[in-house]
Amino acid sequence: MSETTPNAAGPIVPATLEGWHLLHLMFRIRWDTLRDLDREARAALAAEAAAALAPPPPGEGATVTARMLGHKAGLLVLFARRDFEGLAHAQTNWARTGLAHHLEPTTSFVSVVELGMYEMTAKIHRELTARGLEAGSEAYDHAFAAAMAEQRGRVVSRLEVAFPRRRHVCFYPMNKRRGEVKNWYAAPFEQRAAMMLEHGRIGRRFAGEVTQVISGAIGLDDWEWGVDLFADDPVVFKKLIYEMRFDEASAEYGEFGPFYVGLQFDPARLASLLDGAVPEL
Amino acid sequence: MSETTPNAAGPIVPATLEGWHLLHLMFRIRWDTLRDLDREARAALAAEAAAALAPPPPGEGATVTARMLGHKAGLLVLFARRDFEGLAHAQTNWARTGLAHHLEPTTSFVSVVELGMYEMTAKIHRELTARGLEAGSEAYDHAFAAAMAEQRGRVVSRLEVAFPRRRHVCFYPMNKRRGEVKNWYAAPFEQRAAMMLEHGRIGRRFAGEVTQVISGAIGLDDWEWGVDLFADDPVVFKKLIYEMRFDEASAEYGEFGPFYVGLQFDPARLASLLDGAVPEL
Amino acid sequence: MSETTPNAAGPIVPATLEGWHLLHLMFRIRWDTLRDLDREARAALAAEAAAALAPPPPGEGATVTARMLGHKAGLLVLFARRDFEGLAHAQTNWARTGLAHHLEPTTSFVSVVELGMYEMTAKIHRELTARGLEAGSEAYDHAFAAAMAEQRGRVVSRLEVAFPRRRHVCFYPMNKRRGEVKNWYAAPFEQRAAMMLEHGRIGRRFAGEVTQVISGAIGLDDWEWGVDLFADDPVVFKKLIYEMRFDEASAEYGEFGPFYVGLQFDPARLASLLDGAVPEL
Amino acid sequence: MSETTPNAAGPIVPATLEGWHLLHLMFRIRWDTLRDLDREARAALAAEAAAALAPPPPGEGATVTARMLGHKAGLLVLFARRDFEGLAHAQTNWARTGLAHHLEPTTSFVSVVELGMYEMTAKIHRELTARGLEAGSEAYDHAFAAAMAEQRGRVVSRLEVAFPRRRHVCFYPMNKRRGEVKNWYAAPFEQRAAMMLEHGRIGRRFAGEVTQVISGAIGLDDWEWGVDLFADDPVVFKKLIYEMRFDEASAEYGEFGPFYVGLQFDPARLASLLDGAVPEL
Amino acid sequence: MSETTPNAAGPIVPATLEGWHLLHLMFRIRWDTLRDLDREARAALAAEAAAALAPPPPGEGATVTARMLGHKAGLLVLFARRDFEGLAHAQTNWARTGLAHHLEPTTSFVSVVELGMYEMTAKIHRELTARGLEAGSEAYDHAFAAAMAEQRGRVVSRLEVAFPRRRHVCFYPMNKRRGEVKNWYAAPFEQRAAMMLEHGRIGRRFAGEVTQVISGAIGLDDWEWGVDLFADDPVVFKKLIYEMRFDEASAEYGEFGPFYVGLQFDPARLASLLDGAVPEL
Repeated sequence: MSETTPNAAGPIVPATLEGWHLLHLMFRIRWDTLRDLDREARAALAAEAAAALAPPPPGEGATVTARMLGHKAGLLVLFARRDFEGLAHAQTNWARTGLAHHLEPTTSFVSVVELGMYEMTAKIHRELTARGLEAGSEAYDHAFAAAMAEQRGRVVSRLEVAFPRRRHVCFYPMNKRRGEVKNWYAAPFEQRAAMMLEHGRIGRRFAGEVTQVISGAIGLDDWEWGVDLFADDPVVFKKLIYEMRFDEASAEYGEFGPFYVGLQFDPARLASLLDGAVPEL
Repeated sequence: MSETTPNAAGPIVPATLEGWHLLHLMFRIRWDTLRDLDREARAALAAEAAAALAPPPPGEGATVTARMLGHKAGLLVLFARRDFEGLAHAQTNWARTGLAHHLEPTTSFVSVVELGMYEMTAKIHRELTARGLEAGSEAYDHAFAAAMAEQRGRVVSRLEVAFPRRRHVCFYPMNKRRGEVKNWYAAPFEQRAAMMLEHGRIGRRFAGEVTQVISGAIGLDDWEWGVDLFADDPVVFKKLIYEMRFDEASAEYGEFGPFYVGLQFDPARLASLLDGAVPEL
Repeated sequence: MSETTPNAAGPIVPATLEGWHLLHLMFRIRWDTLRDLDREARAALAAEAAAALAPPPPGEGATVTARMLGHKAGLLVLFARRDFEGLAHAQTNWARTGLAHHLEPTTSFVSVVELGMYEMTAKIHRELTARGLEAGSEAYDHAFAAAMAEQRGRVVSRLEVAFPRRRHVCFYPMNKRRGEVKNWYAAPFEQRAAMMLEHGRIGRRFAGEVTQVISGAIGLDDWEWGVDLFADDPVVFKKLIYEMRFDEASAEYGEFGPFYVGLQFDPARLASLLDGAVPEL
Repeated sequence: MSETTPNAAGPIVPATLEGWHLLHLMFRIRWDTLRDLDREARAALAAEAAAALAPPPPGEGATVTARMLGHKAGLLVLFARRDFEGLAHAQTNWARTGLAHHLEPTTSFVSVVELGMYEMTAKIHRELTARGLEAGSEAYDHAFAAAMAEQRGRVVSRLEVAFPRRRHVCFYPMNKRRGEVKNWYAAPFEQRAAMMLEHGRIGRRFAGEVTQVISGAIGLDDWEWGVDLFADDPVVFKKLIYEMRFDEASAEYGEFGPFYVGLQFDPARLASLLDGAVPEL
Repeated sequence: MSETTPNAAGPIVPATLEGWHLLHLMFRIRWDTLRDLDREARAALAAEAAAALAPPPPGEGATVTARMLGHKAGLLVLFARRDFEGLAHAQTNWARTGLAHHLEPTTSFVSVVELGMYEMTAKIHRELTARGLEAGSEAYDHAFAAAMAEQRGRVVSRLEVAFPRRRHVCFYPMNKRRGEVKNWYAAPFEQRAAMMLEHGRIGRRFAGEVTQVISGAIGLDDWEWGVDLFADDPVVFKKLIYEMRFDEASAEYGEFGPFYVGLQFDPARLASLLDGAVPEL
């Protein structure tokens, strides 16, 4: 079985729960060629493209779009689907629209919504051991998997995530450092669990103002995790991440990729974007 | 609340005040295609583009333009606005001008004018503690926020910044090092405060000759801060930054991105730039 | 002779066995230009291109294709051949098809299927030494080579590899770290052998769910090894590699390149890909 | 005042003298499009472009051109002018010639000819202190500035540099290392002065064969210094820099950027370059 | 004089002997545009280009071509000439052929064939010292130079190198590490000499199967050395370099750039390459 479970020596790897599969796509908008079209032609492009952005049936996924700032990307399209088949179809449908002539792909990120369960892994391990089950045994592994399945039911709304209708979006990928001196993956489970707990506390202090979606990309893309933040006031992104930079998990072990920031809008209002506005959410 | 305030153990994160939102845009100028236009066509392009560079109503922001040296960028357009909505509109308006056919975006920087308040954070903390307020309590947090709001009034002219009419501009992004041995974010608050104080002293020695605007980009762009310097004599940029490189904050903890240097000009004189001159300020 | 054999001091370099030569080619698909073709024209392109992907005679190699996710590549073409002559012909034939107009090469990887034989090297060394052969002598070297040839017969099916018909593919290149403090190539043979053994154990736990092909690229390409994983459920890639990241060989010594993930399909169904579907395997 | 002067604790930052402002521009030559022109058309392009390369009035600067080897650049154009206004005009004039259609900018470097005065800084400091002036006082600073102005007169020919008519040119940018362990900017002034002295001795041994121009770029471009070397025999570049690599300043603290090497030619002979020759100096 | 000679303290820098000047040029082949030509047009292109690849008069240099594997380069053209004038002419002649329309330069390397003389430097130093000559004196330096000139005669065939007619070619650039902890240039001469001796022993074990050409690029290009290997069986590249990776010189101090591998062919058979074959040697 592929589920990671603690062995006799106790947990090393925290269990994870996986949800929707995500594909972040970033594009530069070719305003120079769009400008050469008349309004009618742009409207036709937008109608076709908006269809490719239409949300899948309820429970099958979601699609988020944002007008990004700066030269790295002008448009974010984020597809959430149940599996990679769904993502591959969504990416192809989108790429085959006429609007693709006017968009230049700049980056992307393939990941799966993930809940890392440091505390829960330790808790289940203690309970199963207390019940006399020996870590590494088949009975232990089945009991562990059952406990995780139960957890899954409890947090399904965070795995099949409802992206919040907040105006500002921030996306960045990150790694845990594997330096020659400071190496996350060589630190003891308990130390990592304690650091993640402290890290989570700061996040919770900002919970009213920022919604956070974490996705895992180990084995799927070039960074280990992707972070999506949603907020009404973008200065909150700066304050939250600045404060977190001083907690031990981030200060000593966080490695951050490029940051992308922008304004979420309703995919159905794509025509307004092509006409030069920043559409509403 | 999102404001960062000291906890019982005293300040770790310095409070910050935020002002205008900034978007630096750098472009290579396609002289080869501009040259193929006649003077009249260039004048038409310039008129349209200059309109997109026109300053917003007083107090709503500003726009700075500069002729940059070297291959990395020939033109800097810096929009300062009250929020990201304003920046998104400014970027789109600019990108949709006909001149965009002749400009190749090379880099950009998204940030917010920021005053880092190491000394003030410590001072307010001492005062509130002396008044018997306990750090981390709700009363403390409200008193802290009130004190910061008062500070904001005092320094509003540095947050809603008037960019100086000095001929030379220097822009560069920077980080504080998070090395395995030398890690700014793992250093004690007092040590960081002392280093920032020393760092500021050098800046003040050059105050008559260089105007400095610091903006924060943590959570917004790939570097943590952006620095804009303005001076009549560009050799002063070199002397200031060389001297600073020996202070502890820079020597041990500063990481510097690419440096951009150029000649500020009046956006209304864009036509003259397209005709091959270096327009006056 | 070019075979690496232990010297008097015992093994330092593990012996390796080599099989098929591999060429991974990654392409961005130009959906914008493909879209401008009618269905008939796409079918003609696909027919010509599928011919260039037809498998070589049995035992001479294989060809794998996959629809990749994200901006780094939309299509993977993996040629396995007996030698570099075969790879050069395959690459040229493919590049000369009309479809090449619509594909933009983004990356590639040149390697040779490889079995690293840490345990076997030590075992043969012990046996030959027990037989009184002196390491480094000609007699020893011949006996060592004979033992390796025998091994080769035993594992030929892993050298002339049958790529599994599993839907999902994951490819990434990797190095062993040669840091100033943590240096794989400066670690003793026995320590490296023990780490590889532990590393292999995790792989074997996932054996039912993931098929793994390791190829060596030292002297051939920019990374030392390439890893191809095949699985029905792509979340298994994430779980396997996450768990491995904590074993000592990976935690302290693994350096990972970009990760590519996608959906394997039958090369004969290329036409369906060009029409916008994700073809079946 | 912006001049850096020692403070009470003695010198930390060496004083520098600045001369001409430099703009190195590197271009790939588009031989494919040049080839499509007939000889007459090329001659017209060359005539126009050579005018943009004509030297400024005596004492106002100089222009150097070289045919570079390899793919990084085919042509170096180096403008030396009194100030950035002059450089901006030179760059624009050059970029607006018809030849720009056939040149692809690959890199550039903005800097100012600089003499670093480690020994002189220490010497003046000793003299002023001996005269009873207290470092950091206004009197000291004025005396220091006066002494530097005197030095300037003595070395003006090295600040307003006459580029030598030697066939081979080598250009590279460099930094002083700011590592976590080896950090130039954290080393004591005396140690740095001693290392620079030793470094200079090797340079002087090669003085008959190599002419060296150092320019400072801190605050102006991405590297801290630029080095231009001129020699009749290019193997001397290799021997000089190899030997220097073992002196402490370079071995422990030097960080070197890309190296560019080529054959200097007379800008007036540009037509011959376009016709496929390597013009004489 | 520019020759590096030991000083009173004994050798620090090993003497080097220099031979032919090398220019490696790598190109992507634009099969899409070549395909649009008919066979006759390709033959005309090939005839013109093959003329630019014709070998110079005996003793004046050589030209090597290879069909490379993967996306980094499809074609290697290696010019060996007596000096940089020769290389500049060869590069220009080649770039001005019509084939240049169908080749995209991807990388290059400028270097000079070099023999590093660690052992010889030490031996001559011992002999001259034994003769009573004082290192650093003019007499010593002349005697040293005379001894080196004698060496040059002995090894001239390795300096004016005859590239072997072996099918497979491997090229990579490399540096000696200048880390903060492990620094080749800070290691004592004797230790470096011992490491180079061990390194050379491995090379000699493979001598029958691999021909190696080392060229120096310090001061000329971005890496310190270039290595060209030639072999009948390309797996030997992997075995040789893997084994070397464990010797101290490589394990602790080697830094390796990109690796390029391909199939050498006779430049006169270029037409066959353009027609889609892999021409013979």
